Amino acid sequence: MLTDQFYMQLALDKAWEYQLLTYPNPAVGATVTLNGRILSVEAHRKAGTSHAEVLALLKAYETLLKTEIDFDRFDAHKAHAFLLALPKDFFAECSIYVTLEPCSHTGKTPSCASLLSALELKEVIVGIEDPIESHSGGLERLKNTRSGILKEKCQALIKPFMIWQKKAFVLFKLAQSTNGRIGGGYLSSKASLTHVHQLRGVCDSLLIGANTVRVDRPTLDCRFTNGQAPDVKIYARRDDLDREIPLFSVVERSVEVISNLDFLKEPSFILVEGGEGMLKALQSRIDWMLIYQTPKLSTNNLTYNIDMNLQFLHQGKKDVDLMIWSRQVGD
Amino acid sequence: MLTDQFYMQLALDKAWEYQLLTYPNPAVGATVTLNGRILSVEAHRKAGTSHAEVLALLKAYETLLKTEIDFDRFDAHKAHAFLLALPKDFFAECSIYVTLEPCSHTGKTPSCASLLSALELKEVIVGIEDPIESHSGGLERLKNTRSGILKEKCQALIKPFMIWQKKAFVLFKLAQSTNGRIGGGYLSSKASLTHVHQLRGVCDSLLIGANTVRVDRPTLDCRFTNGQAPDVKIYARRDDLDREIPLFSVVERSVEVISNLDFLKEPSFILVEGGEGMLKALQSRIDWMLIYQTPKLSTNNLTYNIDMNLQFLHQGKKDVDLMIWSRQVGD
Ligand SMILES: [Zn+2]
Ligand SMILES: [Zn+2]
Repeated sequence: MLTDQFYMQLALDKAWEYQLLTYPNPAVGATVTLNGRILSVEAHRKAGTSHAEVLALLKAYETLLKTEIDFDRFDAHKAHAFLLALPKDFFAECSIYVTLEPCSHTGKTPSCASLLSALELKEVIVGIEDPIESHSGGLERLKNTRSGILKEKCQALIKPFMIWQKKAFVLFKLAQSTNGRIGGGYLSSKASLTHVHQLRGVCDSLLIGANTVRVDRPTLDCRFTNGQAPDVKIYARRDDLDREIPLFSVVERSVEVISNLDFLKEPSFILVEGGEGMLKALQSRIDWMLIYQTPKLSTNNLTYNIDMNLQFLHQGKKDVDLMIWSRQVGD
Repeated sequence: MLTDQFYMQLALDKAWEYQLLTYPNPAVGATVTLNGRILSVEAHRKAGTSHAEVLALLKAYETLLKTEIDFDRFDAHKAHAFLLALPKDFFAECSIYVTLEPCSHTGKTPSCASLLSALELKEVIVGIEDPIESHSGGLERLKNTRSGILKEKCQALIKPFMIWQKKAFVLFKLAQSTNGRIGGGYLSSKASLTHVHQLRGVCDSLLIGANTVRVDRPTLDCRFTNGQAPDVKIYARRDDLDREIPLFSVVERSVEVISNLDFLKEPSFILVEGGEGMLKALQSRIDWMLIYQTPKLSTNNLTYNIDMNLQFLHQGKKDVDLMIWSRQVGD
């Protein structure tokens, strides 16, 4: 206990809760400690809002003073201004663990490296340095730093971010019973469905097979989160799709019927929904799989037959369901 | 952070690592804190050895003094004697979180309630009081106690213990690919197999279907853990089994061919291994299922067809595999 690894793992677990939802930013988590006490564990939630370090420092402030801040903590400018206005030694005995090197450049939000430098924390411990060359240099501006804690896990956390710098990051989403049956309304929990709608709300395109469109006649919107419905690409050999299918009528969304996958060369985040056919068609292109597994065994015979090697990256719960993150690995 | 729930959850997660391996004792976890710092998180591992509270206090001692004790910490008598010989105020500022009320009676090991009473900790916080009437009274002997933290989770943790007081606790074990295929050597990780051998080593009987015996010709021993091989009950309509099958030749084990399940009325821990046939035959008798899920999708067509509702209780990793604990729930 009381180890660097323990505090970093807390930051990692929190960051995984918002995996991909921070697109196009990487998932990042942070833990603030004071003499071994955990003051806060926070994660970046949405691009354009306060970063993990900022949220963790705000929460640490609240824990220390047993108070609640009265402004929008996700407004990065307000949050930075608030923290910079605190007495200079406020965090002097605190350490912060961050899964990724604090950002050094000012984008939609002010730089976290500048903030941490001004706050003069006792120590800044990072999992990995920023792998994007133009972003790095955050650590150099800080005193008392260490890096390389749970390095492999911190690298796995931002792998999607690394992929979508260069090409499409392809996430295949599947909902199944515990004995591997798909279809038949197995996506049992509202929480799982809400999470799917959150992913739809941040991805660049939702890719779906023509057969699923024909059979399920889906809407593919984000009604559970009131988000903007994603643009849809329907992978079809020929376009004979019935335009009465609800997905075509969703406002402010484009629908494209495509017969090749060249668009996957473009940096982007592509969410794939479909069954066995789509899984086979996309197999060589899939980076990660996200499986929502319901606590049921079923005699439904709809399943999926494919040989594929995975590596489990993280598992969590969404209400009663398991949410299993994995990446495809070579043979 | 810094909440009772957080410290209790750490104790719960640790206890789950030894779920059922403590048979006939319940799984118990404990966390020791000092002014909000976590000094230790430990769990009871094996009946007859030191309880969770004792292991957590020993580890807290080591953390505080940056030292290592030089005796067998699992020897409860030595451990109690060591802790009782410490200066009276050694743990005066420490609190302990325990998932279950400290035991009040002296059995194979001395009473934890007596120990905690003598050590005069700042606070003893328990998840649930001991539901076995003859065991309770531990809290009454202590000052500064609270109970009811994460009560439902602490109750779920000891559910097997509650069941085997009255009848057999029946655990159905299954190894599968992520798309629900069984057989074909899916139990991929050595860690998963070692865990199965640990369970075989503590259960009263291993129950297996005659068909699995005929087809797999298994040994059903504990060679990975050097444990005593479990007694085997083969559920068969008629006894036409080939005595050359290896399981019959394992030393110091009884093998019984049975045609009814009356023995499940007796308080005991029964581990069931088998496929679809056994799952169907046992369905109404199964309390919990333990699924080792490998990170593979497979075109193997051996699967299991059954309608069953589960509740996921805990998920962990065994090397690359997921280990999913669930209980059967009614419709
Ligand atoms: Zn930042
Ligand atoms: Zn005890």
